Amino acid sequence: MAKIPVGILGATGMVGQQYISLLNDHPWFEVRYAAASPRSAGKKYKDAVAGRWHLTKTYTYEVGLITVEDANDVSNAAAAFKNGGCSFVFSALEMGKEETRALEEQYAAAGIPVISNASAHRWTPDVPVLIAEVNPDHTDIIPMQKKARGWDRGFIAVKPNCSIQSYMKPLHALAQAGYTAQRIIVSTMQAVSGAGYPGVPSLDMIDNIVPFIGGEEEKSEKEPLKIFGSIENGIFKNAEFPKISAHCNRVPVTDGHTACVSLEFAGKKPSSMDEIKKIWADYKGLPQEADFPTAPKQPIIYRDEDNRPQPRKDRDADKAMAVVIGRLRPCNVFDIRFTSLSHNTVRGAAGGGILNAELLKYKGYLN
Amino acid sequence: MAKIPVGILGATGMVGQQYISLLNDHPWFEVRYAAASPRSAGKKYKDAVAGRWHLTKTYTYEVGLITVEDANDVSNAAAAFKNGGCSFVFSALEMGKEETRALEEQYAAAGIPVISNASAHRWTPDVPVLIAEVNPDHTDIIPMQKKARGWDRGFIAVKPNCSIQSYMKPLHALAQAGYTAQRIIVSTMQAVSGAGYPGVPSLDMIDNIVPFIGGEEEKSEKEPLKIFGSIENGIFKNAEFPKISAHCNRVPVTDGHTACVSLEFAGKKPSSMDEIKKIWADYKGLPQEADFPTAPKQPIIYRDEDNRPQPRKDRDADKAMAVVIGRLRPCNVFDIRFTSLSHNTVRGAAGGGILNAELLKYKGYLN
Amino acid sequence: MAKIPVGILGATGMVGQQYISLLNDHPWFEVRYAAASPRSAGKKYKDAVAGRWHLTKTYTYEVGLITVEDANDVSNAAAAFKNGGCSFVFSALEMGKEETRALEEQYAAAGIPVISNASAHRWTPDVPVLIAEVNPDHTDIIPMQKKARGWDRGFIAVKPNCSIQSYMKPLHALAQAGYTAQRIIVSTMQAVSGAGYPGVPSLDMIDNIVPFIGGEEEKSEKEPLKIFGSIENGIFKNAEFPKISAHCNRVPVTDGHTACVSLEFAGKKPSSMDEIKKIWADYKGLPQEADFPTAPKQPIIYRDEDNRPQPRKDRDADKAMAVVIGRLRPCNVFDIRFTSLSHNTVRGAAGGGILNAELLKYKGYLN
Amino acid sequence: MAKIPVGILGATGMVGQQYISLLNDHPWFEVRYAAASPRSAGKKYKDAVAGRWHLTKTYTYEVGLITVEDANDVSNAAAAFKNGGCSFVFSALEMGKEETRALEEQYAAAGIPVISNASAHRWTPDVPVLIAEVNPDHTDIIPMQKKARGWDRGFIAVKPNCSIQSYMKPLHALAQAGYTAQRIIVSTMQAVSGAGYPGVPSLDMIDNIVPFIGGEEEKSEKEPLKIFGSIENGIFKNAEFPKISAHCNRVPVTDGHTACVSLEFAGKKPSSMDEIKKIWADYKGLPQEADFPTAPKQPIIYRDEDNRPQPRKDRDADKAMAVVIGRLRPCNVFDIRFTSLSHNTVRGAAGGGILNAELLKYKGYLN
Repeated sequence: MAKIPVGILGATGMVGQQYISLLNDHPWFEVRYAAASPRSAGKKYKDAVAGRWHLTKTYTYEVGLITVEDANDVSNAAAAFKNGGCSFVFSALEMGKEETRALEEQYAAAGIPVISNASAHRWTPDVPVLIAEVNPDHTDIIPMQKKARGWDRGFIAVKPNCSIQSYMKPLHALAQAGYTAQRIIVSTMQAVSGAGYPGVPSLDMIDNIVPFIGGEEEKSEKEPLKIFGSIENGIFKNAEFPKISAHCNRVPVTDGHTACVSLEFAGKKPSSMDEIKKIWADYKGLPQEADFPTAPKQPIIYRDEDNRPQPRKDRDADKAMAVVIGRLRPCNVFDIRFTSLSHNTVRGAAGGGILNAELLKYKGYLN
Repeated sequence: MAKIPVGILGATGMVGQQYISLLNDHPWFEVRYAAASPRSAGKKYKDAVAGRWHLTKTYTYEVGLITVEDANDVSNAAAAFKNGGCSFVFSALEMGKEETRALEEQYAAAGIPVISNASAHRWTPDVPVLIAEVNPDHTDIIPMQKKARGWDRGFIAVKPNCSIQSYMKPLHALAQAGYTAQRIIVSTMQAVSGAGYPGVPSLDMIDNIVPFIGGEEEKSEKEPLKIFGSIENGIFKNAEFPKISAHCNRVPVTDGHTACVSLEFAGKKPSSMDEIKKIWADYKGLPQEADFPTAPKQPIIYRDEDNRPQPRKDRDADKAMAVVIGRLRPCNVFDIRFTSLSHNTVRGAAGGGILNAELLKYKGYLN
Repeated sequence: MAKIPVGILGATGMVGQQYISLLNDHPWFEVRYAAASPRSAGKKYKDAVAGRWHLTKTYTYEVGLITVEDANDVSNAAAAFKNGGCSFVFSALEMGKEETRALEEQYAAAGIPVISNASAHRWTPDVPVLIAEVNPDHTDIIPMQKKARGWDRGFIAVKPNCSIQSYMKPLHALAQAGYTAQRIIVSTMQAVSGAGYPGVPSLDMIDNIVPFIGGEEEKSEKEPLKIFGSIENGIFKNAEFPKISAHCNRVPVTDGHTACVSLEFAGKKPSSMDEIKKIWADYKGLPQEADFPTAPKQPIIYRDEDNRPQPRKDRDADKAMAVVIGRLRPCNVFDIRFTSLSHNTVRGAAGGGILNAELLKYKGYLN
Repeated sequence: MAKIPVGILGATGMVGQQYISLLNDHPWFEVRYAAASPRSAGKKYKDAVAGRWHLTKTYTYEVGLITVEDANDVSNAAAAFKNGGCSFVFSALEMGKEETRALEEQYAAAGIPVISNASAHRWTPDVPVLIAEVNPDHTDIIPMQKKARGWDRGFIAVKPNCSIQSYMKPLHALAQAGYTAQRIIVSTMQAVSGAGYPGVPSLDMIDNIVPFIGGEEEKSEKEPLKIFGSIENGIFKNAEFPKISAHCNRVPVTDGHTACVSLEFAGKKPSSMDEIKKIWADYKGLPQEADFPTAPKQPIIYRDEDNRPQPRKDRDADKAMAVVIGRLRPCNVFDIRFTSLSHNTVRGAAGGGILNAELLKYKGYLN
């Protein structure tokens, strides 16, 4: 089977590099188009990232030779895509919110589906915020979006903020078992790669932590309500619960966001910690059932040791696509508490985006 | 005025060194007796700590020449103290809980007051757990203790766990203003010096955090109930509130424990964040009123910047004896949330112990 | 082809774990015997390393079920090996030098070849110190060793200290091209994993470096002379050059030793930096020619960027078995200078040991 | 005695803040004028540094209220200075080399002495590069400079690069004793504060080192030749020795540059390591003899422990103005080797600049 050619917007940045690297051996997709800022445009990809490539794993020889295009030049992209150059784009744009929003819409309007990591469209009502295991049915918003916008083939689908990823699947697993979360207080310890490069200055991260990440707490509190929302009578409605209060901290870790979660259930409560562990161990979603190439075999891994999960030791579990949880115990104030971890630039960014693309391909949106 | 000669038990360890260093220029107390494990006994202090001294500030020439005694040899201490050697001891013992408990009792029984950093006696009902600003009246437990034990001059007083120190004074300030906390969910990011030396292996603290500190969460949840307890009709009763649920994490920071606190009030609530900031800014305790030498001028410092407090920049505020708070804002689930910071080996250990000694001296217990 | 069953001495330690992990999928060897301290003996391997497993990659299900033996019980090992249990052992013992030396000799005397990571036998004259690309012919010392000791099948072969590995292959490549090093001044920045676990305290590695590693400089200065030695008329002679002066430092890096090398040639000098880069790029040894499974395809990788090699980005190059070099430039005092990097627990420890085993198998010493 | 009013150019940057902080309690100088980029001009100093102040120690209330001026506006400065506003300026400018050079000359031409931290004028032949203990007589270049430039009261004097500071005084001490260095190979491990703020990204400094600092090696090799130069017959001549080869590395340390030095003497060699230690212990310069307020009591502190100096433990020795040395031992290739440490933003930057100002005041150049 011929691979589907894809493009990357923001290909030279932190998340763009992660996309390139993860797609090296992808069985369905193949990078053929790379766009970035005008500064990089016209250079070969290998020259554009020389001295700025941050990953251990490198890009392929072929990708290194791709000429980087100007991401703002949508007509150029449209032309390239018409000639069979590409089927859709992953957006890892790092520009301002307004510019990103407008540019992603231009791509979609030009007939190019946009699977985005940017936060610009997360609160656009007709744009789905997808976690492939949790709300694969939210792809049903796409036809509504296309219709409303008058778009033919193009559309926009996004992934949520990286800092909530480690506890959305566990919450979903519990909700499916009948245990819905009503209130959550969460404190995160987030990796510096979440801020891109150059990102967080080392003077702030040696013998130090920073108890603030601009905009992160608001996103953490709002986005789950959209992810847990539902389509009723052709209208999308956000969920009302769980109420979340987030403390977001930056810590000296390269990759891997950790969350300390205290949770109160709405009604029925699990009978024991063991019941919860079993629910998590048994959890599977569409990506597992349909065996998507990037899907982790086991989306939630529970570790029984007292002192896990730890970012350096657990972030790469199952191709860095699994969530690792530990320390499940009764909460002294709410019902339960636990610590969860997710790789922020893989599962929380490029890997999550690719999994979404696999979901959208499976559902026929990328033909 | 001649200085009061004092002794240090566990003088060569992490907290012992901090005591030695902080007492270098103390106007009331002077180190004359240093005891440690049999391994160090018989050596000059400077030789006993050679290659193991961890602080930037050093010990005095005189302390360097003190011959270290065996901390287990209580009769030796008693003899030394009778000869005018010392008035009381600071205990920074790092042995097992049972041994510490027994040994501290032996010193007290031998007529030597013990002001301790160890956790061994925190739940002994007739031993006060003191934070000098918060519960100075708990020294009234001491006569009860002496009577029950049949001790004459000796007694035991302890300080609480370092990880709760950053929010006990803020809670106390609010309670004094009529706003009592009912429920608290707190997540800490604690410095490695809290585990002593060698303590936490560097392999666990490079590009990593550890979401667990043995026993710390239990201490954090129980000790405040004793500190907020009261003596009624000659009987000490623990408080019933606040209910606390703690997540304690170890992070790559040398000194300074940070806490992310979400708090629900029991009844009356402050009218605004500004009212709370004013309560904190105005907060004073007996140490400030009586102008104890080690007391911070302002026990609670609030910083308005978004991204403070930070351990490296704020831990040394007011001789590392102040609590620094920031990010006060409404909680999405409870009433308010904030981030607080306290220097764990100064305010949370040796400095706190010295302030307790100043309180006890002021109240006449060290004559 | 059936795999050769092998044993690991010190299987639960840092390097032992690395052996277990690297042998997970090895095409020639298979772990069947695991021995450690009496404390671990009798436990299943998975239980013996519970809470102490430091690597991202884990052990196989089968290895987890192996019952750990007491490494001191050589007769037990001998019996197990006779029954077809094992062919040889990798020694990752972490006991004292004298005990290690004696114990490794007992294994060899019992007919079990010992391929060791320990430093105990590096200066035993009839024990070869092997780097598979550099001195594969030093295996010729083994028959001399067997004869002198009266050993039949057993023997001892060791690998050198990890801190010199990053520049031994580059020196060898230059020497083969006729450019021999006369004097070297080298300064290393070494990873904490080199000290095992718990190893270096985090209090020494946060906002700090330690300019000393016990015994490391002496090893760095002496071992190259043995590696570059030769057998003449049946007698092994150490080399007299290069004279090396080493400064060994510990830095806050998990894995990967970096060396800053200034080098003076003995006679003939390369005509240009480009000539040297070509020599390094073309360098191949027996492991590459015979295509050993653990051999890096390209033993020396040169990076042209100004700011490489960097431990986190380059240590895993070619399965963490390659040396990565950068910053080659004329030295203001000697002839040339450069910076080189090698993964200390893979290439410098377990991976290097496995490559030596592949060499010894290839030469027929493990039949 | 009334304090001398001084100005700071680049007052809001990293080094500028250090100047402000160190001059808080200075007995001779008082900050009255603060200039920075146009972005900060017109703001109160406290507003200009809000959220950007990096030091534990803060600025005085009075400095906080100073209105920041545009550093490019020399005529404004000249007017302010004429009105008795200021006597001279410390330049901590962080603009490009050419702009800095031109701007500093404009200040000097306007009658304002410039004591600079910038590297712009270090190779201007008639500008002295001063280390107050090492070459205080190089102030004799100033009259030559004034004459050549036609300047009346203004002049420019600079301090050298921070990375060489830890070994210049030790070399000078040895030279004074008759032991001159001929060749030096040095490898540094430099703190991130040397790169300013935001400076080095944390992604490059977590579990990593960077073996390159742009321009640093060239400065390290050339500047000592100017510092050890001499005025002969009214003409300044650089020294020809020592030949230096430097490897400069960036490591995850906030403050404190460490250097591993191997040194070959030109002729006569010290008889023993003890002789060298005595020379260093006895070393005094004009700052000590004339008791300058910022001078360390003992400019070179030797520590006998194996594992010192260490940045976090030793950088603050003697107000962070002393050099701390350890590990003196024979070099296997040259004559001796040792490790030395100096605080890069105090002794190596603002503290060194203030000490130079004290020297220039003492010599009458600031009247």
